Amino acid sequence: VAAIGPRGGLSSARRLEILTIGTELLLGATVDGNGSWLSRRLAEVGIRVPRRVTVGDDVAEIRSALADALARSGAVICTGGLGPTRDDVTRAAVAELFGRALMLDAEWLETVRGRFHDRGIEMPAVNRVQAEIPEGATLFPNDRGTAPGVAIEDDALGIVVLLPGVPREMRGLFNTHVLPYLSARGFSRRSPVLSRSIRTTGIAESALAERIDDLVEAFSPLTLAFLPGGIGEDVRITCWGDLPPDEAARALDAAEAVLRERLGRYVYGSGSDDLAAVLGDQLRSRDLTIAIAESCTGGLVAKRLTDTPGSSDYVLAAVVAYANQAKERLLGVSRETIRTHGAVSEQTACEMAAGARRLSDASLGVSITGIAGPGGGTPEKPVGTVWIGVAHADRVRARLFRFGGDRSEIRERAAQAALAYVRLTVLEDSAQ
Amino acid sequence: VAAIGPRGGLSSARRLEILTIGTELLLGATVDGNGSWLSRRLAEVGIRVPRRVTVGDDVAEIRSALADALARSGAVICTGGLGPTRDDVTRAAVAELFGRALMLDAEWLETVRGRFHDRGIEMPAVNRVQAEIPEGATLFPNDRGTAPGVAIEDDALGIVVLLPGVPREMRGLFNTHVLPYLSARGFSRRSPVLSRSIRTTGIAESALAERIDDLVEAFSPLTLAFLPGGIGEDVRITCWGDLPPDEAARALDAAEAVLRERLGRYVYGSGSDDLAAVLGDQLRSRDLTIAIAESCTGGLVAKRLTDTPGSSDYVLAAVVAYANQAKERLLGVSRETIRTHGAVSEQTACEMAAGARRLSDASLGVSITGIAGPGGGTPEKPVGTVWIGVAHADRVRARLFRFGGDRSEIRERAAQAALAYVRLTVLEDSAQ
Repeated sequence: VAAIGPRGGLSSARRLEILTIGTELLLGATVDGNGSWLSRRLAEVGIRVPRRVTVGDDVAEIRSALADALARSGAVICTGGLGPTRDDVTRAAVAELFGRALMLDAEWLETVRGRFHDRGIEMPAVNRVQAEIPEGATLFPNDRGTAPGVAIEDDALGIVVLLPGVPREMRGLFNTHVLPYLSARGFSRRSPVLSRSIRTTGIAESALAERIDDLVEAFSPLTLAFLPGGIGEDVRITCWGDLPPDEAARALDAAEAVLRERLGRYVYGSGSDDLAAVLGDQLRSRDLTIAIAESCTGGLVAKRLTDTPGSSDYVLAAVVAYANQAKERLLGVSRETIRTHGAVSEQTACEMAAGARRLSDASLGVSITGIAGPGGGTPEKPVGTVWIGVAHADRVRARLFRFGGDRSEIRERAAQAALAYVRLTVLEDSAQ
Repeated sequence: VAAIGPRGGLSSARRLEILTIGTELLLGATVDGNGSWLSRRLAEVGIRVPRRVTVGDDVAEIRSALADALARSGAVICTGGLGPTRDDVTRAAVAELFGRALMLDAEWLETVRGRFHDRGIEMPAVNRVQAEIPEGATLFPNDRGTAPGVAIEDDALGIVVLLPGVPREMRGLFNTHVLPYLSARGFSRRSPVLSRSIRTTGIAESALAERIDDLVEAFSPLTLAFLPGGIGEDVRITCWGDLPPDEAARALDAAEAVLRERLGRYVYGSGSDDLAAVLGDQLRSRDLTIAIAESCTGGLVAKRLTDTPGSSDYVLAAVVAYANQAKERLLGVSRETIRTHGAVSEQTACEMAAGARRLSDASLGVSITGIAGPGGGTPEKPVGTVWIGVAHADRVRARLFRFGGDRSEIRERAAQAALAYVRLTVLEDSAQ
């Protein structure tokens, strides 16, 4: 990591720093997620950030932090303090530092006014200040909000980029406008840090490590990191800019192939793939449809499957049957089954899955019934006990899971396990 | 927020800054949780932090960031870089800056060696460097790990405190040793920073600002901050330690009362209250039960309501009826209604809400039908068009919403609006 800092050969003109602005950050009420995200994106494109600074919504402190940063570095990316209210003072602080007046950008004002108009609303007067930018600055239009991005350049002072603090607006502006802007100004000469990750579910971190631990050395100079998540493990391979990009890409391809071979069916995707979306693609490509019957997950499986646009093609219906009566009336689970085996049982899970499938004529039915806690556990069925059922083709089957964690974690894990179980069932049934 | 910074009356000697050290922080691989935690704890005890800085594990950059901070402020608290491996260089950087040699603290070395011995292990040789501290520095024993805390004072330079980066070690050392140390040096004479926040939904940030903007001055020296969220706005009132604690509490009470009065029914809670939990309490206290019929939100309303333990007392059932056929079969929406008015219409929303209530004998039914996008919009019903229906007592009613944002935001906002609509309906119906 010696390459960070002046020793890494960064001239001060090509140093770039991040300044995150917000009193809530300094009070510790909010974690600085924007600072982390920007740092990560900049590393990905090969721009190293030797320092990151946080100040509150205070003109004097913002101006002083910016002046300090520009004395060390050629550019500063700021986030926060561009809202329409009086505590948003970033625009004023930057205008003051650069000795420029704030000027109304009439075109942007009209754009924002038009957006409000399209929604049948008059633009509130307070939003007008968001169209004021320092004289001579470049405006980056914000598709997702009313605060535009701004870039100011001065031969003596350097470059300052302003981005709003709302994460998705900041991210969109950074990717669309700020990266090309920085790259045109020579900020990304180095080879980028490249990485790949593959996503697994259904295998514990220690079992995963045993299967691939020897690769830590075999992959060098690439590094291998295990990233445990509550609902699965990711494995990341990183090339730290030591190799030219095409060589790095080949090395990453080769390493990824070895990992996929070793981990087999536990791998469901790469990068930030979501298991629900992966399952959705699988269902769509096979012309399958699904119905869901949830008890302890309370709608989470349906929510995750329908997060994906176009999921109405394969999600036919979902029923959250919390009460036993609802299991009987909506899903046709027999009262006798619940009385004999309990609501959290293999038999109930099977009848729920079959019932969900029947009531919507779907090709698959999946069910989840369990004890998410904190109450409701017994010695035989402790909190975390979950039965997951799948009805597919001419079979209905169920599996028992025991999840650790609190209520929310148990629900997340049960939902992930249900999606994984459906995916594997479809794979296995079609392999026969 | 004018009270932060030099203008707030902090002499430079009593300014305190935080420096978090770690390459993983600058790569964005880790969020700076230590920085947030320290900021929060310092605010709680009335020590203001006007700036927080992050650098990597690099001697030159650490030394330069420390020198910069000490030129502005009387003290700097650092975390990270005290481990036993080669990339832990914080000790060396500080010794260099203060022009002092690193000296072995024999007593600490024996303590650590003894701890390993008690566990039947020989102390690894690498841990020895952790017992080296700059000459003349104060050592704070770490009960939870092998890196001690360190404090160095110099009349010209100021005070630097070093803490390990492992969160629980850092927190223990801070509470036990650093706070008393700072307080003995005059850093916490001020009263603690106290704040309150109230949560609103159903009112836009700009409309909210218009209603209470005059309070920004009326509340002084308390400050008012607007914290927009995707599904509601929070308003925070803060007392920055200018008043004695009991006077501050009275001032906050009074300010909160004025805000609640001005914002009326838009206020649903305070602090980190969740609207779904607030609604749950409302239903439980009135012995009401609810059934949910969701289309575009795909299970999200059910998921949110069942996040709360014990929600099975009032959530009887939920149906996700994505397909029109499911709306007809599961909820009893008439085919004629869908044909005449469309699936996204007042009539369909009303029939869905009534159907959900009927099939579970709940006291309330709520329905959501809309276009979450990205596809499916038309000029008359663009993406973001959502009808929300509520069946309660002898009435079924529905309201039209137009939400901005992407699919995920539209779904989040629609779910929040549905919860808010049920809450207001129950309030209004019981006021009659």
